[in-house]
Amino acid sequence: MSETADIGVVGLAVMGANLARNLVSHGYSVAVYNRSYSRTEKLMADHGHEGTFIPSSDIADFVASLSRPRVAIILVQAGAPTDAVIDQLAEHMEEGDIIVDCGNAHFKDTIRREAAIQARGLHFVGAGISGGEEGALEGPSIMPGGTPESYERVGPMLEKISAHVDGEPCCTYIGADGAGHFVKMVHNGIEYADMQLIAEAYDLLRKGLGDTPEQIADIFESWMETELNSYLIEITAEVLRQYDAETGKPLVDVIVDAASQKGTGAWTVQTALELGVPVTGIGEATFARGLSSSPLQRGASAPLESHALSIEVEDRDEFIEQVRQALYASKIVAYSQGFDLIQAAADFYGWEIDKGELAKIWRAGCIIRAIFLNDITDAYRANPDLPLLMADEHFAPKINACIPSLRQIVSRGALTAIPLPAFSSSLAYFDGVRADRLPAALIQGQRDFFGAHTYLRVDNEGVYHTEWSGDRTESRWD
Amino acid sequence: MSETADIGVVGLAVMGANLARNLVSHGYSVAVYNRSYSRTEKLMADHGHEGTFIPSSDIADFVASLSRPRVAIILVQAGAPTDAVIDQLAEHMEEGDIIVDCGNAHFKDTIRREAAIQARGLHFVGAGISGGEEGALEGPSIMPGGTPESYERVGPMLEKISAHVDGEPCCTYIGADGAGHFVKMVHNGIEYADMQLIAEAYDLLRKGLGDTPEQIADIFESWMETELNSYLIEITAEVLRQYDAETGKPLVDVIVDAASQKGTGAWTVQTALELGVPVTGIGEATFARGLSSSPLQRGASAPLESHALSIEVEDRDEFIEQVRQALYASKIVAYSQGFDLIQAAADFYGWEIDKGELAKIWRAGCIIRAIFLNDITDAYRANPDLPLLMADEHFAPKINACIPSLRQIVSRGALTAIPLPAFSSSLAYFDGVRADRLPAALIQGQRDFFGAHTYLRVDNEGVYHTEWSGDRTESRWD
Repeated sequence: MSETADIGVVGLAVMGANLARNLVSHGYSVAVYNRSYSRTEKLMADHGHEGTFIPSSDIADFVASLSRPRVAIILVQAGAPTDAVIDQLAEHMEEGDIIVDCGNAHFKDTIRREAAIQARGLHFVGAGISGGEEGALEGPSIMPGGTPESYERVGPMLEKISAHVDGEPCCTYIGADGAGHFVKMVHNGIEYADMQLIAEAYDLLRKGLGDTPEQIADIFESWMETELNSYLIEITAEVLRQYDAETGKPLVDVIVDAASQKGTGAWTVQTALELGVPVTGIGEATFARGLSSSPLQRGASAPLESHALSIEVEDRDEFIEQVRQALYASKIVAYSQGFDLIQAAADFYGWEIDKGELAKIWRAGCIIRAIFLNDITDAYRANPDLPLLMADEHFAPKINACIPSLRQIVSRGALTAIPLPAFSSSLAYFDGVRADRLPAALIQGQRDFFGAHTYLRVDNEGVYHTEWSGDRTESRWD
Repeated sequence: MSETADIGVVGLAVMGANLARNLVSHGYSVAVYNRSYSRTEKLMADHGHEGTFIPSSDIADFVASLSRPRVAIILVQAGAPTDAVIDQLAEHMEEGDIIVDCGNAHFKDTIRREAAIQARGLHFVGAGISGGEEGALEGPSIMPGGTPESYERVGPMLEKISAHVDGEPCCTYIGADGAGHFVKMVHNGIEYADMQLIAEAYDLLRKGLGDTPEQIADIFESWMETELNSYLIEITAEVLRQYDAETGKPLVDVIVDAASQKGTGAWTVQTALELGVPVTGIGEATFARGLSSSPLQRGASAPLESHALSIEVEDRDEFIEQVRQALYASKIVAYSQGFDLIQAAADFYGWEIDKGELAKIWRAGCIIRAIFLNDITDAYRANPDLPLLMADEHFAPKINACIPSLRQIVSRGALTAIPLPAFSSSLAYFDGVRADRLPAALIQGQRDFFGAHTYLRVDNEGVYHTEWSGDRTESRWD
């Protein structure tokens, strides 16, 4: 049995077990290990016939069963459990062996771990995986970060088991150390924005048209024929079409309207704040989930009066098309902000991220898979240093065409008291980034007034301060 | 000279020197120390005659010159320099002595330092100070956190040198360890929102009315007679009234429209994300500064077309009043969110923060000082556990009265391409918190579809999952 497995998997909960099954189904011999052996036995009993699994009840045996340079994938809980498994593996591994963390690590933990593991002569790959349990089994989108050497050994296997589009794998080398987990985090942040925008579109259609969820499912389904074609639009139709067996009501009306979160949206916004990148769509989406899950505040809001205007929808088809265009325009803004964040992080952490390739590997396997990503790939192919995705020569006409609709929809939401945090912040960002002059000049004036924080002049080099509490003359402070 | 000083100050840059001068002007004898002695000498030469300064060139002599239990205020750079000074002081201090950090520390650093210093038998007070250089000299707003015992010794002195309103000091005990620096951080976050809202109001007036900055200064000045009366409104008028001596243009048109930040806005939003509290106004304000300071993105935006509608202002006075009401409503939202965050942190960190007292000590000395804060104090006096400030029985009628204007203004901004990120996110929050049903239920449905994240039902206890990829039956998962 020794030194025969092509690759190993530690942690055999659903995600790990499915990834191991995916690997054997592609012809790899896969060593498997789990802290409690019963899970390993269950995998062998249920799926042992699917291919060559090499089970071990001891981690030393597990490591010994791997062919060199050894590759062990970890799929255990993020945080301390991951650190513990890394330590155990490293103890038994030898120079050049590779540990691959496919868990939901924060990219800063991955940076720390990669440095520690490299100091021990091993390689560490932090690989983001999207696609959930089904993706792990049938082909996820995989975002590995680490040394190029380690990718040479691990990459071909990960590419083989990943989702494919037109024969191309949804897995590519992302960059050094934490780059893989970083882009996975931004993927999830964009997912938050995408879902919130869809939820706002649904709210507008439901309240504006008075349609049933099933009728709105038809609308979302029809949008699959447009540039909005995507997994999230598809499953939105599925969810809206579902009736509750017990009550006969649409399921969406039976579900408590409090959206949960597991942290990656908040991580994305926190990182964007550190790097000074405005990701307002993701920010509003994350806060909207928080608001929905604030029973105390929502429960105390009765004294607030909406003063909503009731504005009839005059032309049903026109209104649906306006909502669709507003959704598309806002989606472009959210992705543009997300890719800005990726570029800022790449600059800060020294990663060389090919943003066109990245958009390509999100076309299948993952939650934000969408036709739309082809356009992003094309845009970055044409101009890898594109500073503002939505102003790319291919995207600009598309968003420009939809902006009048977004204006009407945001205005309607404001007047009719439909909360549109993500739609309206997307429009504000669009108008902000293209404004010739922003009122930020006034803020700089205020800051100079109360804190002597100084300002720059549009017509001269240098740093200036006005003697606000003195004779109000200006002096140069640099 | 030994053991005679009532209190000491370490770090004699402008803030420290001004605080020391403030202390001697109130009759205290103040030991002073600075790493480079020249600064101490300059303070003595320029201001030695103002009262009893006791200078030392050596930190051991400085500590020896303090009467017991000794109190030393630190006003040095945040981060490593603060840690270094704390270490030096602690080395020479004795049980029961008190170190007071009045710098701009992150509250988590203060929590860490307080624990470390208490383990050495000393007290550590983390005191947020607002009011800038002028406030430090003439009376700032002071927010001290630490043990109640240490406040007994330090509090009376800090209260004496703080700003006063109707004879009441703008300094009160906030809570344990990091509570003081925490509320100072939220103060700054609210300041970000307040300034962004004012900037958006200015932008609306400027573009809507075509007025000059000086004319708009008159409008802001007139708002000083309303419930908007505040320091920030006052200085806005001052800044807008200023002409550039060199060009003769309004200064606000000469200042580069890129707002800087020193991090406390971002800290506030990051903390809110950790605690799951939506502070959308502060979030949008922080991101708006980031956007204004993104030259690459702004420079690349030319291909974007605004498709702005031009809508004339028909009634000048009515429009000005709409903008004023929109500003007031949004300001209530921003403060409501800020105080929510304070309550959430108090719950999480175990601080007993008297929010009414806190609003009181912000009425003078600090940047967000405003008449408006009296109402907040009243609201929390009447109901200390108020879950949603803006729905308080006194506030609700005020915000309700302004909501129709906020709706009109947000709609106008959307249609005429004036970026209103903070106004529109305030309205979206208002409409979100008072919505009977939010589309978050759809998000929960999507999450259950792609990730088996489960959902709750409105009509039954328990945690549920639908077999989306199977027969679509529902099962209970708890």
